[in-house]
Amino acid sequence: MLVRGQSFRTIWSDSATEGVVHIIDQRRLPWNFEILELRGVADTAHAIKDMAVRGAGCIGVTAAFGMYLAAVESGGSLTKLRAFAEQLIATRPTAADLAWAVRRMQADLEGVDPTSWIARSHALATEIADESVAGCEAIGRHGLKIIRAIADRNPGRPINILTHCNAGWLAFVDHGSATAPIYAAHEAGIPVHVWVDETRPRNQGARLTAWELAQQGVPHTVICDNSGGHLMQHGQVDLVITGADRVTRRGDAANKIGTYLKALAARDNGVPFYIALPESTLDVTLADGVKEIPIEERGAREVTHVDGLDGEGALREIRIVPEPSPAANPAFDVTPARLITGLIFPRGVCEATEDGLRGLGLLEHKA
Amino acid sequence: MLVRGQSFRTIWSDSATEGVVHIIDQRRLPWNFEILELRGVADTAHAIKDMAVRGAGCIGVTAAFGMYLAAVESGGSLTKLRAFAEQLIATRPTAADLAWAVRRMQADLEGVDPTSWIARSHALATEIADESVAGCEAIGRHGLKIIRAIADRNPGRPINILTHCNAGWLAFVDHGSATAPIYAAHEAGIPVHVWVDETRPRNQGARLTAWELAQQGVPHTVICDNSGGHLMQHGQVDLVITGADRVTRRGDAANKIGTYLKALAARDNGVPFYIALPESTLDVTLADGVKEIPIEERGAREVTHVDGLDGEGALREIRIVPEPSPAANPAFDVTPARLITGLIFPRGVCEATEDGLRGLGLLEHKA
Repeated sequence: MLVRGQSFRTIWSDSATEGVVHIIDQRRLPWNFEILELRGVADTAHAIKDMAVRGAGCIGVTAAFGMYLAAVESGGSLTKLRAFAEQLIATRPTAADLAWAVRRMQADLEGVDPTSWIARSHALATEIADESVAGCEAIGRHGLKIIRAIADRNPGRPINILTHCNAGWLAFVDHGSATAPIYAAHEAGIPVHVWVDETRPRNQGARLTAWELAQQGVPHTVICDNSGGHLMQHGQVDLVITGADRVTRRGDAANKIGTYLKALAARDNGVPFYIALPESTLDVTLADGVKEIPIEERGAREVTHVDGLDGEGALREIRIVPEPSPAANPAFDVTPARLITGLIFPRGVCEATEDGLRGLGLLEHKA
Repeated sequence: MLVRGQSFRTIWSDSATEGVVHIIDQRRLPWNFEILELRGVADTAHAIKDMAVRGAGCIGVTAAFGMYLAAVESGGSLTKLRAFAEQLIATRPTAADLAWAVRRMQADLEGVDPTSWIARSHALATEIADESVAGCEAIGRHGLKIIRAIADRNPGRPINILTHCNAGWLAFVDHGSATAPIYAAHEAGIPVHVWVDETRPRNQGARLTAWELAQQGVPHTVICDNSGGHLMQHGQVDLVITGADRVTRRGDAANKIGTYLKALAARDNGVPFYIALPESTLDVTLADGVKEIPIEERGAREVTHVDGLDGEGALREIRIVPEPSPAANPAFDVTPARLITGLIFPRGVCEATEDGLRGLGLLEHKA
């Protein structure tokens, strides 16, 4: 997508410059747009752990390129290659895409002569990145139909889409999941306006989604997470699209904390609520999302403190909860399938049910 | 209630010092506890508009004392007195208590000789303040029964109560509405734990409710507004109590933006959802809250900027939304009566319906 009018992916590597991978440093956004060079596995592990890259899709592809850097660094030693794989997987042990990408790279390299590792791993990591891009593009095409149908029923006014957190191109390699239909509609000339939930506590909506949309010229308005219900009550939301971190075979969806509340409001007001996701987000081993998906409890400091730009333009952290009061920080919640209008996959749209997933061939595929 | 172990009300005025009213400057809390002197209608209007006082009850009593200051300033001119009344009413549009208090003061003064205005208005404003205190105490007694019933069914563990925004003593003159039952239960030795919604954008929960509860020694945990649904899904909320800014004769309740989302989650998880309010918050002239209650749209800066303490303990404002992105800031939403388990008034608890209100004699009372 565009950054200051120039096309970017979140991660790229030129095979002509061996042992170098470039990423956008997402810790610095939206205040600074900086490119970070990863020159080895240690750099890559640190970038994932410290959240220079975040979002399941983006983490997975970064880990794949991390295995390319591992191939360069290993000097042909299988022992070293395997140790690097474990080091990468250990960075964020809960992210499913991370282990998936590393194991796929590892399996490919272990079967061939070490002299081919570097070229082969670069090619495969690039392929994994391209697959992600193609998947998000396909999500965009399917979601575009949903937006177009709403636009056809409401000519002459922008279609208002609410999203929570960042399931944008920054969370993937390009296009994003929840944002792909929005970008596709904008490009197709359908007037859209996006309500961007700021998404406390880490404010990925205000920081990343708003920045993304501004860079593409998509009209949007940042709102507090509290506002969506009111907007829906007053007919100001036509559609909700979010991403997901894990979806069970029954269609229950874990996503950023607060998603469930928006799904309830959407249901109460007859607003369609869609979740857009790549197939790697589906976890067919789980059925009941509320009971079975483990919810990460993150540090209280994300709630009690917030950072941003001070009057002089310097990045600064401030305390917003008074000292003696403790804080809790569950990072995700689960939206029950009954509240979800549909799931938008690269291969198509389905109901959030076992039958729906089976109809797209997704249960057999992963079983 | 207690501040550093000493008893305070949010507003007081000594008739011996004519033309002076004292308030706690709530803009400075929780970082600084400061008393502000109001010396005229302009001071009072500014204090209400700039939210040095906030919360329906506190605004109402401040406006009542504002009419006392108007009596002092008017020099016996009915034209001036009436203009001051309009000036005070124009400060905030959503809270029913504001206009109610001003009109009550005005009606009382218009019928009598201007020479008696000052003494009479001071006495009546004091009476309105005392009525508020007694009303909140009564709310506490009725709400205590609800909490006690839950505690009796769940012996040996704290009762978890979620509240949104600040309907605490700071929002009234003393005790608060939503907090009165909590303080009563705590005092009665029932173990309670309060989930405090931080309440973006102005963070009245994190700043005021958490501070209040800490001052009274009530166990509590601050959470992002996004978290309540998840906690309810996992049985970690026994009861929700909030305040309200305006309640219609059908029981629809306008309260701080985001209340509606918590009411939806409470309904979805079988958690009782109560609204505690004085009778002055009831607006029997309205029926359908979503359609009829005017919702104040406040400035975008409350969303795009936040203040708190920096590393050196200095109060500092930072920008948290990137520059080109606009923000919207609806300050209230309306919780439909169908989602409300009951309304806790000083005179008792009733269903959020016309019949319920009639049963408490509240429709006749105000008609």
